[in-house]
Amino acid sequence: MKDQLLYEGKAKQVYTVTDDPNLLVLSYKNDATAFNGEKKANFAGKGRYNNLISAKVFDFLHDQGVPSHFKKALNDTEQLVERTTIIPLEVVVRNVAAGSIVRRLGIKEKTIFEPALVEFYYKDDKLGDPIINDAHALWLTDATEQELAAIKAMAQEVNEKLKKFFQSISLQLVDFKLEFGRNHLGEVILSDEVSPDTCRLWDITSGEKMDKDVFREDLGDLIQVYDKILKRLEAAK
Amino acid sequence: MKDQLLYEGKAKQVYTVTDDPNLLVLSYKNDATAFNGEKKANFAGKGRYNNLISAKVFDFLHDQGVPSHFKKALNDTEQLVERTTIIPLEVVVRNVAAGSIVRRLGIKEKTIFEPALVEFYYKDDKLGDPIINDAHALWLTDATEQELAAIKAMAQEVNEKLKKFFQSISLQLVDFKLEFGRNHLGEVILSDEVSPDTCRLWDITSGEKMDKDVFREDLGDLIQVYDKILKRLEAAK
Repeated sequence: MKDQLLYEGKAKQVYTVTDDPNLLVLSYKNDATAFNGEKKANFAGKGRYNNLISAKVFDFLHDQGVPSHFKKALNDTEQLVERTTIIPLEVVVRNVAAGSIVRRLGIKEKTIFEPALVEFYYKDDKLGDPIINDAHALWLTDATEQELAAIKAMAQEVNEKLKKFFQSISLQLVDFKLEFGRNHLGEVILSDEVSPDTCRLWDITSGEKMDKDVFREDLGDLIQVYDKILKRLEAAK
Repeated sequence: MKDQLLYEGKAKQVYTVTDDPNLLVLSYKNDATAFNGEKKANFAGKGRYNNLISAKVFDFLHDQGVPSHFKKALNDTEQLVERTTIIPLEVVVRNVAAGSIVRRLGIKEKTIFEPALVEFYYKDDKLGDPIINDAHALWLTDATEQELAAIKAMAQEVNEKLKKFFQSISLQLVDFKLEFGRNHLGEVILSDEVSPDTCRLWDITSGEKMDKDVFREDLGDLIQVYDKILKRLEAAK
């Protein structure tokens, strides 16, 4: 089914699919990167966790009526998705102040944002994914003003749904990054992944960090943490 | 008339006025700073040029119906303005790519923006005036969504008028920074200054930089350049 390697990113490989130009296979790698690729490591099993966790998140979002590229998990590390052309925006949603916003804007860590803050970053490794405003996004991408507004509304909607989803497995959704892509019909839909690589998740009881910050900040065993999340999701079924 | 020193910034001192709590005196200093205060110098006469040039710009904007804090120049280095509480935003309008946007977003220098790009920076020296989006501005300031939209519309309107104003003295308005303040009636009006310290101005014929970049980039005699601008404005009367 997997045909040719189309693109290799930091965390995934993307393959075309034989006989269907509108599908792709995402193959999750075991690599972890942080600080725009400056810190790198490889964790056996990480690809499997992100694939299976992201599949569960997208299945949930699908059931909740959120249009996305996700079709199904094919095996432990691969999933079938609708082919989209990624709009080069990292759409970050923040419920609680953590990470870069604390340093950049001097906002106290753990400040609650209500409503959630939505930020656009221009997806460009060479530039270090700089933060941008709507006017820049209109200039730098092919998204229209209406599409940018729709992306922000979708990001807020996904946030409302995912806050409850993660709360049900005792995790606080602190912030997360989404990407959107344009399918062959020209529709803008949710793409990429939603996993502990792309979310900040704090244990509701202990406050423990249960996401890629464990790697960024050398807090412990990343795989053990990702395993806990998958086990909680499986138990919640 | 000048009463007590209320505030001293990098380029101006602000004084209260005896007997009228709704007025302030701005006293322009000879100091020049760049790169968030890292580069500093003092140029005899600079305060006079910025005061007189800014006065001419605000007189023009007043005649064009743009509400601002400006009342009148009092002497060579001081002007009388309506008292406002500054909204801590640096509102940057860009007609042509130059300076930080070239480095940050990889946009080629001299790219024309049509319509002009409007950016908000959070006015905070300690944080280095970071760029922000509308959601941040709502969080960090007391401006409402409607007021932010009005500020952007005013910035675009001022840009249309100032492009023609500077064109009439053979200068291309590349980009500039505005600040807005709230007066005692709660209205948001144009405040601060508009001068070669706060605009990028390129000579239409020679392309020569005729603004603070002369100081930032050590391109020549800043005072000679500011003198040229004032002389052109006086000749245009």
